[in-house]
Amino acid sequence: MRDADGAMLFGPTPGEELRARRLRIQSLLQQASLDGLLVLQPVDMFYWAGTVQIGALFIPSAGEAELFVQKNIDRARKESALGAIRHIRSLSEMAEHLPASRASRIAVEMEVLPAAELSRLKKYFPSWEFLDGEKLIRQARQIKSPFEIDLMREAGRRHAEVFARIPEWIADSTTELELSARIESGMRLRGHQGLIRLRRWNLELYYGPVASGPTAAYPSYFDGPVGTVGLSPAVPQGASLRKIAPGEPLLIDLVFGYGGYHVDKSRTFALGGLAREFQEAFEYCLELDRAIVSRLRPGRKCSEIYLEVMGLVENGPYREFFMGYGSNKVGFLGHGVGLELDEWPVLAGRFERVLEPGMTLAVEPKIFFPERGGVGIENTYLVTEDGAERLTDFPDDLVIV
Amino acid sequence: MRDADGAMLFGPTPGEELRARRLRIQSLLQQASLDGLLVLQPVDMFYWAGTVQIGALFIPSAGEAELFVQKNIDRARKESALGAIRHIRSLSEMAEHLPASRASRIAVEMEVLPAAELSRLKKYFPSWEFLDGEKLIRQARQIKSPFEIDLMREAGRRHAEVFARIPEWIADSTTELELSARIESGMRLRGHQGLIRLRRWNLELYYGPVASGPTAAYPSYFDGPVGTVGLSPAVPQGASLRKIAPGEPLLIDLVFGYGGYHVDKSRTFALGGLAREFQEAFEYCLELDRAIVSRLRPGRKCSEIYLEVMGLVENGPYREFFMGYGSNKVGFLGHGVGLELDEWPVLAGRFERVLEPGMTLAVEPKIFFPERGGVGIENTYLVTEDGAERLTDFPDDLVIV
Repeated sequence: MRDADGAMLFGPTPGEELRARRLRIQSLLQQASLDGLLVLQPVDMFYWAGTVQIGALFIPSAGEAELFVQKNIDRARKESALGAIRHIRSLSEMAEHLPASRASRIAVEMEVLPAAELSRLKKYFPSWEFLDGEKLIRQARQIKSPFEIDLMREAGRRHAEVFARIPEWIADSTTELELSARIESGMRLRGHQGLIRLRRWNLELYYGPVASGPTAAYPSYFDGPVGTVGLSPAVPQGASLRKIAPGEPLLIDLVFGYGGYHVDKSRTFALGGLAREFQEAFEYCLELDRAIVSRLRPGRKCSEIYLEVMGLVENGPYREFFMGYGSNKVGFLGHGVGLELDEWPVLAGRFERVLEPGMTLAVEPKIFFPERGGVGIENTYLVTEDGAERLTDFPDDLVIV
Repeated sequence: MRDADGAMLFGPTPGEELRARRLRIQSLLQQASLDGLLVLQPVDMFYWAGTVQIGALFIPSAGEAELFVQKNIDRARKESALGAIRHIRSLSEMAEHLPASRASRIAVEMEVLPAAELSRLKKYFPSWEFLDGEKLIRQARQIKSPFEIDLMREAGRRHAEVFARIPEWIADSTTELELSARIESGMRLRGHQGLIRLRRWNLELYYGPVASGPTAAYPSYFDGPVGTVGLSPAVPQGASLRKIAPGEPLLIDLVFGYGGYHVDKSRTFALGGLAREFQEAFEYCLELDRAIVSRLRPGRKCSEIYLEVMGLVENGPYREFFMGYGSNKVGFLGHGVGLELDEWPVLAGRFERVLEPGMTLAVEPKIFFPERGGVGIENTYLVTEDGAERLTDFPDDLVIV
């Protein structure tokens, strides 16, 4: 096993891809009069170095990046196409190799880097000024390259294979947990990476909700519209022991993670049939979905799309129940996806940025009836020059099992 | 579904339990001349409030704790036995309800709280001095109550049921991924919570390694002894597509998470049989395991246990390969487990604290042969007045399938 390539789905990120990513963030660093970006978070490190390591990556505003690896440098060298990779015993050793004494304005990952870690960095680099790099990082990563889009398309294809099997798995399952375990196993066998990554430091997700009847409308702390119960208050999300009953909506909202990249998709299922009221609400979600997707065009401002579509909702029959009810309601219609599930752009009232080609986002209009259930639809889209391309192939229809 | 209890494995943490936990941290806060602890991290919040919420929990050095919930207060009220629970729209609103203007020394979760979040807190509470509460938190949480130990025992029982099935799953699987997917599904159906939680901000884990032959000795960034390949460089851990071959060791090291609590366990399997050399190394791990476990007694200093056992290793035949080789080697023999997988105590050379009754830790002597494979054993123990009680029941033997 001198080479693990045969045991992996695919190998290293090409050097040209890493170079293009570096040039993009360097241009943003220069515009912001910053001297460099210091990366410690695993996802950002993978994006710019092609490998996940405990250590740090320094990207100066011009020139090559340098990767510092604390544990095993062999794997870093195998996976990363970067030229400058060094072993360090601790982060303090980095200062010997970087211009630590020169006064510099350095961007860091302020929303994920722990306060204690930042304090240590300030000690190692006393002449550096550490500034918030979050917006630059989000801005750089929100435009996907053809290489990244191919991985997301592949994630979408594998996700569709799983959804095609869900009807038979529903028929074979008694509880949410049984169904969820079958689906998770189906995803893993199709190359799902297991972990779902969110940037927000205090949010966690395990695949996503498999929510039967009232579960989908159950109160949740999670910053998403679908309620879930979970197995205990310690991990209050995902499948519960509730039995799936005929005639109620079964809202399945799952993330597929392939080679680091996520796609997000929801469908509404039902065992035996579904009352007219739920069917009508579902049809309304499809209508709103078309209204949102038709607006996914370069140059459109995200907040305007949100407000226009919410204007339709305000004048429609589901105002109270759209995207949750009461304090379970969430204030967005879609969210960027990529290496993390909560990337830019966001279709929300205060997100003023405009759509650009290469952005990828999940659109998820959903309706929830207290104590009864939720219905809705979700797909992941790529913004192109002409509009939106769907990355999560599979019929949108309600599926009666 | 007005009440979700029937859909969960169990319900809220008892009020008496929460009260005892609060009194313990309050005593530590008082000893450190701190005026309170402000908790934002999900695991710490669950420990002291019994519910996972986006928001904050304030524990004054004396008196009742106050929970502030940003999204849905209904669920917080259902799950938490605390008396004071308030809804806030944003963290800034907290200041209206707390003595924000009084000069106070407040502990926070410095190793997990993002730097930007701490900056915001400093703005909301300009007269507060924020100090590092990590050691107090770790100290408070490292002693498990009978309530917590019961949950860990139950996790151990369920984990043992899964391990009993692994031989037949090995026989049915071609690749590491197939075997891992079967095991994960088996764990989920037995109530595994899905998520594994680590405190260290930049470490992630998905169940744990299922490592066949050379995979177990493959370089890894993860701060553990077992190497893994994974499905891609983006998530370089866990099962790969490698085919499981007869005659090689299969090192399976998995975490069971039940009601928030983890137990950690490893066993060595082999298909068909195993060369004498691996068998001898495995027997040596068992011998070292006995040497470690016999030292797990109240009053013993962790660093001394580590140094004594490493003294045996230095004089033994596996010096070079024990707990990894080269830069893959790790510097510990065991680690605390509970609501997180990397708790106190740690059996490491620089961890000077002494063992106390109620501590729980995983002990994991392992040996790795470059390019060939790894063998070893791991169990989770409770330190009692008399010694160590094993929480992960299952025979220690090498399992030939």
